[in-house]
Amino acid sequence: MSYIKLDYNYTMSEFLENGLTDEELEASNDAAKKGLSDFITLSEESEVGFSNLPEFDLSQIKKTVKASKGQYNDLIIVGIGGSSLGVEAVTNALLPHGYNALSFGERGCLPRVWFADNVDPHKLYWILKKCEAEDTLVCVITKSGSTVETISNFSIIYKWLNENLKDPFSHIYVITDPEKGPLREFAEMHNIKTFSIPSNVGGRFSVLSPVGIVPAALLGLDIDRMMEGAEEIVKSEKEKILHLSAIYLSFIKRGLNINVMMPYTSRLKSFCEWFSQLWSESLGKRYTKDGSEIHAGTTPVGAVGANDQHSQLQLYKEGPSDKLITFVELGSHDFDAEIQAGFHPEFSYLTGHSLGQLMNYELHATELSLRKAGKPSLKLVMDGVDECSVGKLFMLMQYVVAVTGLSMDINPFDQPGVEEGKHFAYGMLGREGFEEKKKEFDDQYIKSDEYIL
Amino acid sequence: MSYIKLDYNYTMSEFLENGLTDEELEASNDAAKKGLSDFITLSEESEVGFSNLPEFDLSQIKKTVKASKGQYNDLIIVGIGGSSLGVEAVTNALLPHGYNALSFGERGCLPRVWFADNVDPHKLYWILKKCEAEDTLVCVITKSGSTVETISNFSIIYKWLNENLKDPFSHIYVITDPEKGPLREFAEMHNIKTFSIPSNVGGRFSVLSPVGIVPAALLGLDIDRMMEGAEEIVKSEKEKILHLSAIYLSFIKRGLNINVMMPYTSRLKSFCEWFSQLWSESLGKRYTKDGSEIHAGTTPVGAVGANDQHSQLQLYKEGPSDKLITFVELGSHDFDAEIQAGFHPEFSYLTGHSLGQLMNYELHATELSLRKAGKPSLKLVMDGVDECSVGKLFMLMQYVVAVTGLSMDINPFDQPGVEEGKHFAYGMLGREGFEEKKKEFDDQYIKSDEYIL
Repeated sequence: MSYIKLDYNYTMSEFLENGLTDEELEASNDAAKKGLSDFITLSEESEVGFSNLPEFDLSQIKKTVKASKGQYNDLIIVGIGGSSLGVEAVTNALLPHGYNALSFGERGCLPRVWFADNVDPHKLYWILKKCEAEDTLVCVITKSGSTVETISNFSIIYKWLNENLKDPFSHIYVITDPEKGPLREFAEMHNIKTFSIPSNVGGRFSVLSPVGIVPAALLGLDIDRMMEGAEEIVKSEKEKILHLSAIYLSFIKRGLNINVMMPYTSRLKSFCEWFSQLWSESLGKRYTKDGSEIHAGTTPVGAVGANDQHSQLQLYKEGPSDKLITFVELGSHDFDAEIQAGFHPEFSYLTGHSLGQLMNYELHATELSLRKAGKPSLKLVMDGVDECSVGKLFMLMQYVVAVTGLSMDINPFDQPGVEEGKHFAYGMLGREGFEEKKKEFDDQYIKSDEYIL
Repeated sequence: MSYIKLDYNYTMSEFLENGLTDEELEASNDAAKKGLSDFITLSEESEVGFSNLPEFDLSQIKKTVKASKGQYNDLIIVGIGGSSLGVEAVTNALLPHGYNALSFGERGCLPRVWFADNVDPHKLYWILKKCEAEDTLVCVITKSGSTVETISNFSIIYKWLNENLKDPFSHIYVITDPEKGPLREFAEMHNIKTFSIPSNVGGRFSVLSPVGIVPAALLGLDIDRMMEGAEEIVKSEKEKILHLSAIYLSFIKRGLNINVMMPYTSRLKSFCEWFSQLWSESLGKRYTKDGSEIHAGTTPVGAVGANDQHSQLQLYKEGPSDKLITFVELGSHDFDAEIQAGFHPEFSYLTGHSLGQLMNYELHATELSLRKAGKPSLKLVMDGVDECSVGKLFMLMQYVVAVTGLSMDINPFDQPGVEEGKHFAYGMLGREGFEEKKKEFDDQYIKSDEYIL
């Protein structure tokens, strides 16, 4: 079984100037315990469901996917936010770099994968340009069944399927609410294959539901191993969840408003984007649960080592002390290769080391250099990147964010702040029932030429 | 000629609760004027060279690239930080989405492009797995000629070229310092084609030098147009530079420590990463120019609309008032497509609108929604994404960051904070002259098991 370790030495006053005291961490630990206990209650009452996903029966998914094997050259994921970020994180971590440029045979007769997430016409044009409808499977993912970007992109893809196929419906999978929503109605009307997102699993907590698991299986990944990893967190890692939540809580309490996630591997770059959504939407809240105004939330920043040593590190080291950095280190790097820099005598010191070693040396050097500058960092150490470790990482961070939010006495499972913007957009689009919002928009979206150059 | 407009209405107190007053902006404008004047001096004294790049003679580059046309199926860029982020921004903006999955013919007989930036063995393995040495051109980019990650990746690629080709040197371009550095020595010894980065152009300001221009030309992009766009900023946009710098300065002075760059197009996602380096390394400084401790620097965050409305927006709207957001709007979107959502009556309101319209409606809705919540934003509006507008955007932001830094009385052109980490890594790698650093590292990189779970 793969491991995931939490090393928080360089957050503590024993090692870091102005680091956390044991008492400070203890107090946060008590808060985190309350948060975890609240979470367990919510989970037992089935209010929140993500921690139960590892018990999900995967046999229908595996059967369906097995039957489709070899049929598709392309898989288009139509979804946005929680309906695409998790799948992107999975594919970035677990598929070869530049996977879509491999041939069908090199891919093991598995499809390429495209993300129609943004309503970006340039992006969608080029995706469809590359696909042939008869070899394409379209996976539409929206829990509500009515996400405007997803429906808009899908409308264009659906037309394209319709124009090119006799039976477009067999080329569509719908992943949506188990009972309601217009996309479910559409799917049922046309006998489209559907998978359900449990109603107590929110978008940003859904990567281990069919939202992430169906695409992962279609791409040949070992979904059982992913679930095993996730399950181990649920069953055996309460201490780690508590400690990591407590550390985050301590620095939030101290007023550090930036939370950097910095894995030292390019394979977790999209994971950072997934984490950014999880953190932002869960913890960025105007009100506590009992309605006091709080304007909570620290800002997640994704960075990738060693790349961002050549971009962000200067600021992290010399800038203000407003950040906590979470590094991710890999115990071993797949396909590690020896550096052979004999082509110039100045580089002889590199020969004999490997790329993976260099990566980890750089991480350790950065940890120390930041510690010396009084900047706190902690580190997750995983043995490597595979289905199991990725499953663990997802589940660990979902727990940590949920527990952190509950400890702060906010609701980490809603996102009330995005409604108003949606309603203004509905108004502009002329949707029935949003005439007032249209009027409000027209009255208030005013600009003066004086401030336009 | 394409346009780029600056709309800063929603930073001003006339429209935004607690927005900038005219006096406040005026004061910042005076500071920015001093910064610009300092910049012009540095530029006239040839201390800083990026603003002169549009006058660069491109004929040698064009000739070389023309002669290579059709010869290569793959282009590998070996470089990190300023030697890769600009090229990635250019390719993301100007090439088709999923470009590397197009066939040679569909690409107009131009090469695919790969970035060997990070020392990530998994990434490098898959890049080389896809390329055939005889059809591959390797572009090694490092100003110093000794960047450890670049040299390490190149050593492995060079070995691969050597093993597969009689004349590996003709498959290499070197882009480095005009006079010195081990990579230049290596190139001269083997008669390798080289291009020079002017010595007064630093990595993060080098995208319009051969660093970005040679790869852009190799990928069939119109480098003349890119330079024309950049030149227009140098010649005609001093007012815009001053105003944008002044707005940034005003919010820095107010203590907002997060600077969000949020274009509403997926094509500028990598531009955000380029901008993040530019901003972080230039403005994140411990000391002022005269040596007073200041710990300056606000943290750049990249976001992409509409995607991040489903990720970051909740935090931006409801969280603390610690952010200034810079939106980028496109006047028109290439390949815009009409939404045809007749497949379910609930979506009929979408029909007749286009994806690009929806994108811009969402941006306007977000602007207003944030304004109502008292969160400041400004907006750059460009007519579209092409070589000219991208050249403008690069040059504008380079100026703005340089002027902002000089106005803050810091040196925006150095990065002293990254040296220590490099030296620790050299020590660990056993490089001669870094024995003391190795000892310091060993003595100080200490962890207690008590803080590892």
